Amino acid sequence: MLDKEKALVVFSGGQDSTTCMFYAMAYYKEVELVTFEYGQRHALEIEVAKNIAKEHGLKHHVLDMNLLSQLSPNALTQHDMEVSSDDKIPNTFVPARNLIFLSFATALAYQIGAKTIITGVCETDFSGYPDCRDVFVKSMNVTANLAMDENFIIATPLMWLDKKETWALADSFGKLEYIRDNTLTCYEGIMSDGCGKCPACELRMNGLNAYLEEKEAAL
Amino acid sequence: MLDKEKALVVFSGGQDSTTCMFYAMAYYKEVELVTFEYGQRHALEIEVAKNIAKEHGLKHHVLDMNLLSQLSPNALTQHDMEVSSDDKIPNTFVPARNLIFLSFATALAYQIGAKTIITGVCETDFSGYPDCRDVFVKSMNVTANLAMDENFIIATPLMWLDKKETWALADSFGKLEYIRDNTLTCYEGIMSDGCGKCPACELRMNGLNAYLEEKEAAL
Repeated sequence: MLDKEKALVVFSGGQDSTTCMFYAMAYYKEVELVTFEYGQRHALEIEVAKNIAKEHGLKHHVLDMNLLSQLSPNALTQHDMEVSSDDKIPNTFVPARNLIFLSFATALAYQIGAKTIITGVCETDFSGYPDCRDVFVKSMNVTANLAMDENFIIATPLMWLDKKETWALADSFGKLEYIRDNTLTCYEGIMSDGCGKCPACELRMNGLNAYLEEKEAAL
Repeated sequence: MLDKEKALVVFSGGQDSTTCMFYAMAYYKEVELVTFEYGQRHALEIEVAKNIAKEHGLKHHVLDMNLLSQLSPNALTQHDMEVSSDDKIPNTFVPARNLIFLSFATALAYQIGAKTIITGVCETDFSGYPDCRDVFVKSMNVTANLAMDENFIIATPLMWLDKKETWALADSFGKLEYIRDNTLTCYEGIMSDGCGKCPACELRMNGLNAYLEEKEAAL
């Protein structure tokens, strides 16, 4: 029996999934987190996720997905490759990574009785990953429901937000500063505002600046 | 680029998936096998699968899925529990097991360039697992295609066959005796005709006897 007041958040400790965590804490009575450990570029990512979970007293499932690296020798999991943003599909591409993550997340949601699975995937910053598209998530939702004869809701609160709007959402929970200071987005593994140069930092910082300017202008 | 003459068979070393292996060898130029190791009741199962793959000179991917046992404490993965066939959903139920297996299998198919994934799931002997249903597999196929922007074919040659017809299919490849002698279906871990008493043995033997009687009558 799934509890509609219980949500499981797919949680990496980055800006987007931490925003999703605060979203879940605002709208659900019970919240648990799941993090997939798959040989991330920076071991720090897992520590950041664990710390945020602990600070908020949330049950945190850390699942070992190192199997992924067997399937996908590439930049996200092999530390000796360069990150490139030139190709249409980034060479950080792990085929079907979200398919695999959401398969595990929905199975875990079944086990803990959570009706809603929340993931921070986002089509607006679409970076060439087909399994970040809305159409994929909706199909995945139907497939998971059929697989377990249940009516899960895979919620994607950031799907149509750009980075500026994601910062606005965090601010609406009073958590902009917390997320700015305590999350890790940077490809170089530098916390908070990061290296400022990699594509992830640029996206994050441009969004933040745009939001702060807009907020100031509105005062 | 996926090769339409290449197939990946989800392979356990049991009757059904071994029949699928011969089906693949009959209809595809290149065949590879994938076995998921997830703390099976009998370690022998993996050995049986490896031996069959080796005897047929097929590339065999054995993926460690012990993570599953973290998600699902139950009879298939915990050796101290009884197998019961009384409940509607057997207590061997691992939620979304086929969802997880097919997620990995399709990602692996992408990596090896196989357009077709073959699985021996079967609705006729439907034992209460929602992710063995045809409607699930079709939805899974769409989801995997969307996840990777590809046009995979998840083929289920046994979907509408009963056990008698599965034996007939094996016989059509001249492999009835091979499958009878070299596969493991029995819950007690006994090869070939098995213990003869568990539900899996009963199903297998009833199907075999029905087929052999029919074949004899036709002579």
